[in-house]
Amino acid sequence: MTLSLHQAQTIVSGALEFADKNKMKPVSIIVLDARGVLKAAAAQDGTSLRRSDIATGKAHGSVALGMGSRALFKRAKEQAFFIAAATSAIGGSLVPVPGGVLIRDGAGAILGAVGISGCTSENDEAAAMAGIAKAGLVSDPGAD
Amino acid sequence: MTLSLHQAQTIVSGALEFADKNKMKPVSIIVLDARGVLKAAAAQDGTSLRRSDIATGKAHGSVALGMGSRALFKRAKEQAFFIAAATSAIGGSLVPVPGGVLIRDGAGAILGAVGISGCTSENDEAAAMAGIAKAGLVSDPGAD
Amino acid sequence: MTLSLHQAQTIVSGALEFADKNKMKPVSIIVLDARGVLKAAAAQDGTSLRRSDIATGKAHGSVALGMGSRALFKRAKEQAFFIAAATSAIGGSLVPVPGGVLIRDGAGAILGAVGISGCTSENDEAAAMAGIAKAGLVSDPGAD
Amino acid sequence: MTLSLHQAQTIVSGALEFADKNKMKPVSIIVLDARGVLKAAAAQDGTSLRRSDIATGKAHGSVALGMGSRALFKRAKEQAFFIAAATSAIGGSLVPVPGGVLIRDGAGAILGAVGISGCTSENDEAAAMAGIAKAGLVSDPGAD
Repeated sequence: MTLSLHQAQTIVSGALEFADKNKMKPVSIIVLDARGVLKAAAAQDGTSLRRSDIATGKAHGSVALGMGSRALFKRAKEQAFFIAAATSAIGGSLVPVPGGVLIRDGAGAILGAVGISGCTSENDEAAAMAGIAKAGLVSDPGAD
Repeated sequence: MTLSLHQAQTIVSGALEFADKNKMKPVSIIVLDARGVLKAAAAQDGTSLRRSDIATGKAHGSVALGMGSRALFKRAKEQAFFIAAATSAIGGSLVPVPGGVLIRDGAGAILGAVGISGCTSENDEAAAMAGIAKAGLVSDPGAD
Repeated sequence: MTLSLHQAQTIVSGALEFADKNKMKPVSIIVLDARGVLKAAAAQDGTSLRRSDIATGKAHGSVALGMGSRALFKRAKEQAFFIAAATSAIGGSLVPVPGGVLIRDGAGAILGAVGISGCTSENDEAAAMAGIAKAGLVSDPGAD
Repeated sequence: MTLSLHQAQTIVSGALEFADKNKMKPVSIIVLDARGVLKAAAAQDGTSLRRSDIATGKAHGSVALGMGSRALFKRAKEQAFFIAAATSAIGGSLVPVPGGVLIRDGAGAILGAVGISGCTSENDEAAAMAGIAKAGLVSDPGAD
């Protein structure tokens, strides 16, 4: 199973609905497929200049290492040097705080990842999971 | 005037409608604002691995130098070394073939650019212009 | 509202006056607009080889994440790995110490940022704020 | 002799005066010292997103290879591969079209370079030379 554009757009719209409903600060939303390729994106009005790069780093780090960015966050707190080295090794785009959520199908296969940045990490992650739920797919935010 | 998310999403949907109606090959669509920041994006199912990077290069080159990528195409045919140097000077993302179209408001101010890649350059450009028209904004594809 | 060259030059001259009056060590002053684009700059005689890159990193980091570099400084002390990751994700130019100050208009919109480096961080920041005040604009150095 | 901030600012103001008087399109002006370090800069209102990078490439290429960018232009037309290789070898910033002018003192020593971009290459170069003349220094635009 491959993440379709329709699914990716549903994830974006679900995340935007969650952000609006919860009066989150303006966020950037990035959806990557299993190859790490940009499938859909939206940046709300008022996001800062490089906010999309942070969102991309959450999603890309998640797909790159096969774990939600909450797990990367745990690893960063335990072993910052590993995360720094991995970030460099994979080309620079890995942001190890919550808000990067793997998209899995019902069988557990990774279809891609969502990265959101702009509000608190907790809210960013919750919005990503709301979007994935709207598309009928499974969220994997990573374990603490 | 700043390009809103709503306008950027309308551009994407207009370009997708044009692509479907004209049975174009799968395309990646990138919408950047005047800061060169990703505002909205969609990659149709079946696009190749780095197609979004090509689309981004068309849009980014257009905003970077303030001219649609058809004008960059003309310059590249006349003076390839300048386009190569400019690409390097601005950090690598500039694709000088048609399909990068400046988005202007009614007064001529640059609001951003659309980049599309995946089909012929002519069709990519036509889809970008269809999207911009759907949003009620003005297309500037650059002069031959 | 867009930062004008006249405003940017006034910020530079105000910062230079402050630096001279307070007998600061030689500084480099960088003014970026809201797009992260260099609008005006001055490096005093005697600045070290890459001092402008440090000043640019303070200003660029501020515009990139939408907060003065004093707030980035606080975050770096609390969560160094996040700042390291964000720096990498946005392309390398982010210096998380005081001296990067957002320029806001009266309504709070971000017009750009000033970055100063060469003296103490406290003095660098004070000079940036003096320049912004001279231009009649609002300083946002970020919260501790 | 070292290029002073006062001289660099005089060069910028002289170039701006020339640009205004000749109704040039909006330009970005970059002044580097003999080390290739940013000494002063100004971007007129309305310059495109990465115009300063092009201006920097003209100035940096000139200082890097010790010849005005008109000489790099000649070389690019004769031997594009050399210019491409040199650009890469020096880190990416070299734009081989007129508008990068070496600043020399009366004895011929290189004090730095001015790079201007935004209007025609001929006008960009003329504005750079006007700025250098205003500072009482010697222009070396490179030989055709």
